[in-house]
Amino acid sequence: MTNNQLTDSGQLRHFLTIEGLKRPLLTEIMDRAEQFSSLSNRHVKKVPLLRGKTIMNLFFENSTRTRTTFELAAKRLSADVMNLNIGTSATSKGESLLDTLHNLEAMHTDMFVVRHSQSGAAEFIAQHVAPHVSVINAGDGCHAHPTQAMLDMFTIRRHKHHFPDLCVAIVGDILHSRVARSQIQALATLGVGEIRVIGPKTLLPADTQTLGVHVYHDMETGLQDVDVIIMLRLQNERMEGGLLPSSREYFHSYGLNKQKLSIAKADAIVMHPGPINRGVEISSAVADGPQSVILEQVTHGIAIRMAVMSMALASQSEQNESII
Amino acid sequence: MTNNQLTDSGQLRHFLTIEGLKRPLLTEIMDRAEQFSSLSNRHVKKVPLLRGKTIMNLFFENSTRTRTTFELAAKRLSADVMNLNIGTSATSKGESLLDTLHNLEAMHTDMFVVRHSQSGAAEFIAQHVAPHVSVINAGDGCHAHPTQAMLDMFTIRRHKHHFPDLCVAIVGDILHSRVARSQIQALATLGVGEIRVIGPKTLLPADTQTLGVHVYHDMETGLQDVDVIIMLRLQNERMEGGLLPSSREYFHSYGLNKQKLSIAKADAIVMHPGPINRGVEISSAVADGPQSVILEQVTHGIAIRMAVMSMALASQSEQNESII
Amino acid sequence: MTNNQLTDSGQLRHFLTIEGLKRPLLTEIMDRAEQFSSLSNRHVKKVPLLRGKTIMNLFFENSTRTRTTFELAAKRLSADVMNLNIGTSATSKGESLLDTLHNLEAMHTDMFVVRHSQSGAAEFIAQHVAPHVSVINAGDGCHAHPTQAMLDMFTIRRHKHHFPDLCVAIVGDILHSRVARSQIQALATLGVGEIRVIGPKTLLPADTQTLGVHVYHDMETGLQDVDVIIMLRLQNERMEGGLLPSSREYFHSYGLNKQKLSIAKADAIVMHPGPINRGVEISSAVADGPQSVILEQVTHGIAIRMAVMSMALASQSEQNESII
Repeated sequence: MTNNQLTDSGQLRHFLTIEGLKRPLLTEIMDRAEQFSSLSNRHVKKVPLLRGKTIMNLFFENSTRTRTTFELAAKRLSADVMNLNIGTSATSKGESLLDTLHNLEAMHTDMFVVRHSQSGAAEFIAQHVAPHVSVINAGDGCHAHPTQAMLDMFTIRRHKHHFPDLCVAIVGDILHSRVARSQIQALATLGVGEIRVIGPKTLLPADTQTLGVHVYHDMETGLQDVDVIIMLRLQNERMEGGLLPSSREYFHSYGLNKQKLSIAKADAIVMHPGPINRGVEISSAVADGPQSVILEQVTHGIAIRMAVMSMALASQSEQNESII
Repeated sequence: MTNNQLTDSGQLRHFLTIEGLKRPLLTEIMDRAEQFSSLSNRHVKKVPLLRGKTIMNLFFENSTRTRTTFELAAKRLSADVMNLNIGTSATSKGESLLDTLHNLEAMHTDMFVVRHSQSGAAEFIAQHVAPHVSVINAGDGCHAHPTQAMLDMFTIRRHKHHFPDLCVAIVGDILHSRVARSQIQALATLGVGEIRVIGPKTLLPADTQTLGVHVYHDMETGLQDVDVIIMLRLQNERMEGGLLPSSREYFHSYGLNKQKLSIAKADAIVMHPGPINRGVEISSAVADGPQSVILEQVTHGIAIRMAVMSMALASQSEQNESII
Repeated sequence: MTNNQLTDSGQLRHFLTIEGLKRPLLTEIMDRAEQFSSLSNRHVKKVPLLRGKTIMNLFFENSTRTRTTFELAAKRLSADVMNLNIGTSATSKGESLLDTLHNLEAMHTDMFVVRHSQSGAAEFIAQHVAPHVSVINAGDGCHAHPTQAMLDMFTIRRHKHHFPDLCVAIVGDILHSRVARSQIQALATLGVGEIRVIGPKTLLPADTQTLGVHVYHDMETGLQDVDVIIMLRLQNERMEGGLLPSSREYFHSYGLNKQKLSIAKADAIVMHPGPINRGVEISSAVADGPQSVILEQVTHGIAIRMAVMSMALASQSEQNESII
């Protein structure tokens, strides 16, 4: 897979996956987000950067929360946003996905934000869009969720500054998590000292060796000397599928409570992509406690999405100008 | 219950209920609405007052009409509006209401407009939101609907000017009506001369004494010398619940037709919060007749909502400035 | 039926049907669209022409594609747009259509864009709206779809310039097609040399004589010397209704493939209102081939809708000024 998310001059055109992106680009995204972050405290939380641009949220899989953050980010950049629930529209008239896409493109759309239950959907769409369109992956199957990973990196940088000094542990269902996959790639690219994954054998991928991570099945051992703990959401589907015994038993082994948190470094931060299952993967005392930065992640999600959207569309207009 | 809808300096921070608000504040809301009202006839029906502000419509109970008026009011104030149908979103993933709220807050939302089938929902939310967020109650269970009450007061003031001289009758299902409850509180606060409630015993509250209203079970008697008649919508659920015989019988006793209207003062106005059931609580001749101000109420609803939204967010930015 | 879509001075107030409109007005719409068309290639695809105007999309029949084009057109004119799914809202509370309309009008709405499954719905609504409201027909039953017809005329003019020299063939289910009806009226008004309809007897209207079109049941004969081929979408409902044998057989007789296309003029263009049924009414080779202008039609749809919306609201403000 060639890296088709960059323009010839190396700028972000699509944002599909962390895989293959270089450290300077990830740093640029975070630096850009830092600028937008200060905007949120101003009286007018808005810049005219994308005025007159058309952004379409194509959510094949429902996710009010993620759609809301992208819609807000777009509006704060002054773009026009359209929400299309594709599942229930044109495709129900028997039109093919590509026909639907080409139609939306023909309306002079500048960007598709794509959420899909199938891995590779955003990349497939990016391969087929017209040159003037950017595609942002808002989560595709078990594959990638790059804006989530970048808001997590941004949150870590805000608290811990220097990535090479850090030990980061990701806890839970690594196997099925697009979030974990993108996080591991981002942490590795940013040169994090040590990346650990903690979970039961049934929920860990087979390729942990190639991922460059250390594997722990025992949470107490895995959390020792950790600077950052990233808890993953437990999908109830997994338990129904027989991969897990019960949520009570899961919490006992892999849920984060105060006792387990005390094993990590005293100033460790606790993260979670949300929505959290209180009492399943995390106790309320920890989720609402002083080391939790879970709500900060949500806040940073807006700034990161504004950064990625504005960078992708800036590279577009540059390209278009050079064509003209 | 302390009055937590005001800032320390007595300005509107939330707008949850009429109860506990003083006459000068209700008058200030109407004066403010008067300014926005003239806007509707201008070529550009829009002011940049809330540019860059984020307002989220949280409708746990579906109400296209009310949501539309709040969305329109927000757009005419140049705010960014998001419509979240909460019933079908995050909470369906098992997230608690408060977690959903704190997430939306973390996106630097400035205001929640809340509609909920349970009494007290808006107040509960207001008690738990961050200091930078305002909450507007767009109707909660049988409890309150304060913007509806204020648009009714505004409509009365437009036509009748001096509240102390007036006799106002509210007709119908007072017991279950959040609209009636808020209206009675507003009318009393504004010093209306006489407030009457008219309806069958099964649909009148037990505490009419403490409400300071006069009770009539016979509509003909109750309408004598009345300046303002407020008809309530008859919820079909009530009839199914056995509290009422039939819509035909209800109309005979408590429906407003021309003959009954003639008992009131010759210049009495007829109001209804909508949507109307023609032939159930009101005849078409009266609803469409010269004394009806029902559509004016809708028009004034936009101005009142603009007034309340702008006042709540103005008090916020004042507070934030004093913190900074 | 008097032509109630024009103001006394002959300007477009509503846009309900092509029927009764004169050639200069159709030309004015296309000239206006030409101006907006160039906008799409600019950095900021937006003009402040309708800033502060309120446009409501009233879709009684679901159509994401058409609604999206109207919403985009309105946003690029800087209007405030509201999407109301009327089927599931106020009318479900037992309110009459006219009461719903009058309520929305009372909110100082400037324009209704109406889609309805019943013929005549848009005209009915136009007959009952207040003087300050314009109505645009976005498709009503089997009756009319005037913006679709105008974007088709615009597409033809872009490629073929002089209407009187042209021979245009419309192929498929003419009988049930609001698109075909509006197209035939527009082509006739613009003085197209020859209009042909091609289809099985069961799908052709009885009044083809009065329509001034030439009828062909054999596609090969009908396509000879044709400059423009307009394929219609085959509604699956027709086949279920027994009017047609099977989609395979239909494609054999009336589907457009390369062989049949070769019968038309060498520079003939192929059009389709979308969404296309590949392999039913058109082959993929033709739909994606060099003579297809199907995606251009989508692009022009935005410009045409901007033209019609801005013309209707310009005539309104003129009228209002003359009243004031």
